[in-house]
Amino acid sequence: MSVTEIDRRALLAGAAAAAVTSAFVFRPGAAFAQSGDLEAIKAAVTAGKDATIKSIQDWIKLPSIAAEDLNMAEGAAYMAALARDAGFTDVEVVPTDGDPGVFGILDVGAPRWLAVYFMYDVKHYDPAEWSSPPLDAAIVDLDGFGKVIMGRGAINQKGPEACFLAAVKAIKAAGKTLPVNLVLVCEGEEEIGSPHFKQVVTKPNVLAALKKCEGVFIPTAWQSPSTGAVTINLGAKGIIECEIIASGEKWGRGPVNDIHSSQKAAVDSPAWRLIAALETLVTPDGNTPAIEGWFEHVKPLTERQKELVAQTAAANSEEDAKKSLGVKVWIDDLPWPEAQERLASQPTVNIEGLVAGYTGPGGKTVLPGKATAKLDLRLVPEQTVEDCLKKLRAHLDAKGFPDVEVKFTGGYNPTETAEDARIVRAQQAVYARASITATLHPRLAGSWPGSTFTDAPVSLPAGQFGIGHGSRQHAPDEYFVVESTNPKVAGVEGCVLGFVDFMYEMATVS
Amino acid sequence: MSVTEIDRRALLAGAAAAAVTSAFVFRPGAAFAQSGDLEAIKAAVTAGKDATIKSIQDWIKLPSIAAEDLNMAEGAAYMAALARDAGFTDVEVVPTDGDPGVFGILDVGAPRWLAVYFMYDVKHYDPAEWSSPPLDAAIVDLDGFGKVIMGRGAINQKGPEACFLAAVKAIKAAGKTLPVNLVLVCEGEEEIGSPHFKQVVTKPNVLAALKKCEGVFIPTAWQSPSTGAVTINLGAKGIIECEIIASGEKWGRGPVNDIHSSQKAAVDSPAWRLIAALETLVTPDGNTPAIEGWFEHVKPLTERQKELVAQTAAANSEEDAKKSLGVKVWIDDLPWPEAQERLASQPTVNIEGLVAGYTGPGGKTVLPGKATAKLDLRLVPEQTVEDCLKKLRAHLDAKGFPDVEVKFTGGYNPTETAEDARIVRAQQAVYARASITATLHPRLAGSWPGSTFTDAPVSLPAGQFGIGHGSRQHAPDEYFVVESTNPKVAGVEGCVLGFVDFMYEMATVS
Repeated sequence: MSVTEIDRRALLAGAAAAAVTSAFVFRPGAAFAQSGDLEAIKAAVTAGKDATIKSIQDWIKLPSIAAEDLNMAEGAAYMAALARDAGFTDVEVVPTDGDPGVFGILDVGAPRWLAVYFMYDVKHYDPAEWSSPPLDAAIVDLDGFGKVIMGRGAINQKGPEACFLAAVKAIKAAGKTLPVNLVLVCEGEEEIGSPHFKQVVTKPNVLAALKKCEGVFIPTAWQSPSTGAVTINLGAKGIIECEIIASGEKWGRGPVNDIHSSQKAAVDSPAWRLIAALETLVTPDGNTPAIEGWFEHVKPLTERQKELVAQTAAANSEEDAKKSLGVKVWIDDLPWPEAQERLASQPTVNIEGLVAGYTGPGGKTVLPGKATAKLDLRLVPEQTVEDCLKKLRAHLDAKGFPDVEVKFTGGYNPTETAEDARIVRAQQAVYARASITATLHPRLAGSWPGSTFTDAPVSLPAGQFGIGHGSRQHAPDEYFVVESTNPKVAGVEGCVLGFVDFMYEMATVS
Repeated sequence: MSVTEIDRRALLAGAAAAAVTSAFVFRPGAAFAQSGDLEAIKAAVTAGKDATIKSIQDWIKLPSIAAEDLNMAEGAAYMAALARDAGFTDVEVVPTDGDPGVFGILDVGAPRWLAVYFMYDVKHYDPAEWSSPPLDAAIVDLDGFGKVIMGRGAINQKGPEACFLAAVKAIKAAGKTLPVNLVLVCEGEEEIGSPHFKQVVTKPNVLAALKKCEGVFIPTAWQSPSTGAVTINLGAKGIIECEIIASGEKWGRGPVNDIHSSQKAAVDSPAWRLIAALETLVTPDGNTPAIEGWFEHVKPLTERQKELVAQTAAANSEEDAKKSLGVKVWIDDLPWPEAQERLASQPTVNIEGLVAGYTGPGGKTVLPGKATAKLDLRLVPEQTVEDCLKKLRAHLDAKGFPDVEVKFTGGYNPTETAEDARIVRAQQAVYARASITATLHPRLAGSWPGSTFTDAPVSLPAGQFGIGHGSRQHAPDEYFVVESTNPKVAGVEGCVLGFVDFMYEMATVS
């Protein structure tokens, strides 16, 4: 869920940023350009292009979906094979209490180490909704973009990940040596909230390898199609996803199953109990958490973070944002800069969904035995999932709802990476030299499993990096651009060369 | 929806009533027995039995479903043909703003007139859930019952209705004259709340015919399978079914469509607005309407009604009721008699369903643009649908929710029929002579379109009558018993004879 969130934000942030490139040309950073390796590697990337495209297509044909227990062992084995094929050694499938992770290293004796994070799972899909079958991974002409691979996982995340592996292979094919050593850590449960990924990164040999690294990144390709711009995120909110459930079974009042609604005059209603419990969680306007102690560990934005938010607000169009979101006003009719500061700084309690009783067309005279609210609660530094879940439970108990269940379904802690971390500065350098506008954003309002890396014991700077474009994550007709006719965004070759340049930059950035 | 509600209540009420019949034998009431017509009519009923069964089967094969606009004109035409076949004259299909009704009379010059109400529509169905195809109307052996017709509409309401027509035809076939004149009024929208039925009964010629009648009844077959007992309802609560909808579109705040939930820190939530609006509708325990002025026209139970409720409570097992409903305690831990009195006397605001945002398994990080609560509000005499809808709207406006929509989807006024009405006394007489325990119930907590008759301008006593058994209304494998092996309940012959006897009783009851 999370990686998609970042991309949506990136698209929005990038929509109004200025870029004047008339045709996308990959411009290597100084480190790569001066390495003497440039021409040979560029040639190798070009020579390997068809193989890179085919590797993305082949991978898409094996979908792993944790929620459906589909091809999980097969997906992990395939991931391990891809890593070995790219030259990684010590590759192992790492068992967890859930689905396995994959780990490998590529030690070329370079002074610095860089970690890369892969997900090998994809979001589920309904083939009936696709214009090209989601597992065909067909090459399709997409208006305004050129040739794209259309298929589930094309951009989220197999396309960019395969391009990173292609970068590693191109350096070897050119007879050159990687500028950094690599640690690869992969999971197959990203789309269900990474519930067991911490078991992978804290396995002693994995943790020892990660501890050597400058930072960790996930390969992306999130250039804005209109401007070519990207966003560099310095952190993200955390998230608790949970279900709040009132039921006759737990309450001991009301019916255990749905009964006829005429009984309401004599029988208590779990649905009304849910409403009463929910109502205590937020202020009457629904906009601020009212859970006891919720703000105890909320750290205000620093002056620098406020400055970056203000810059983002100034660089983006309020009108575009409102249009894109379909909203007329922000909370409390806040002006745009204040609304953006609220977005970056405030924890939330959001209702994702309500489900009780009869949910079809028209009505049905039932008194439901159970009512559920699906919530997501966004956390900001230094709130934690563990502490907040305790507070939520304690709050419901104190308000007289000990029977109302909190079913935790997934989440991450908030994450922050320092602006002067090498993986941030390397991103800025590469983007700048490629004439790609990169907006520094202090905190994504969305969430991703970065805290697995930024939290102890791994404690690494974490982020995203990539050149190129794809979209429709979690939606039908997901795509990844392979041959770009859009002058603002790179195709597969530019994407691969971007990863090559990023590794060279990581080797030398001060 | 409504006729089913009554039956469920009947089953519950009957479950604990005593009946000692060792084999079901139809015993005609005095009027019928002394008419001299008995033997000839009984022979005609027996001779016509196969045709009666076939007429039910044939009718089931033409399902009319108003919600799906399925076979409505065809269903009305078929209904009219059935009426003509039974000897009704002046038969007409009565157009309405919705689906048509059907009207006919059968004037034999008898001193008294009786009206009968038919529904020709059925509830929708999913053939995949049935053990025998719902339109096959196959004769199936059902354990504990004997031979039944299994199909959609078998009990709700085509089986009993066809048996009533068979009764009319048997009298003619025996060369006898109907003891009463008949008025037949039919609708095809019962399952969607009878929104246009008033247009049928107030058509001048229809109204004029109805005004001659002693009362109106719907043919039923709701004997308890364990005791053979039935319930005589003297009234029913009214109902408002509606959707309460909060949306970004109407509110002017929050998103118009679902957006990514990370935006919650800047964007208002229609789902939280729904919660806030709902919370004002009831007391904190969810058990008493808190809508301004809601109790203005609520008429308390009379002493006689309280007495009947107490009798019902005494005649029924609290333990059985709790087990059947899956509840451990009644509202406010009331003792059984008080809980039954609350059930009969109190208006309700019930949540039938909650639907917002993502409703599938797990979670999905959306901020929904719209949230809906499906409510049913049961009304007691002398509340009216019209007045209560106005009060609900005014309440939401006054509480600051003018944007929160109330979408009325159907309803009826409450209805009352006097205990000394001839259709009540005739029922009691026929049931008593057939040794069928008949519990007099002052007010059904469910609802049915009886108020179309009991309200002005029709102003007729209205009720149900029938001997026999069927069940699973609105559910898969709906059935109607045709050859009973259960000594407590009648099959088709008993059902038909019951209607014959009821007409004879109506002709003479004082």
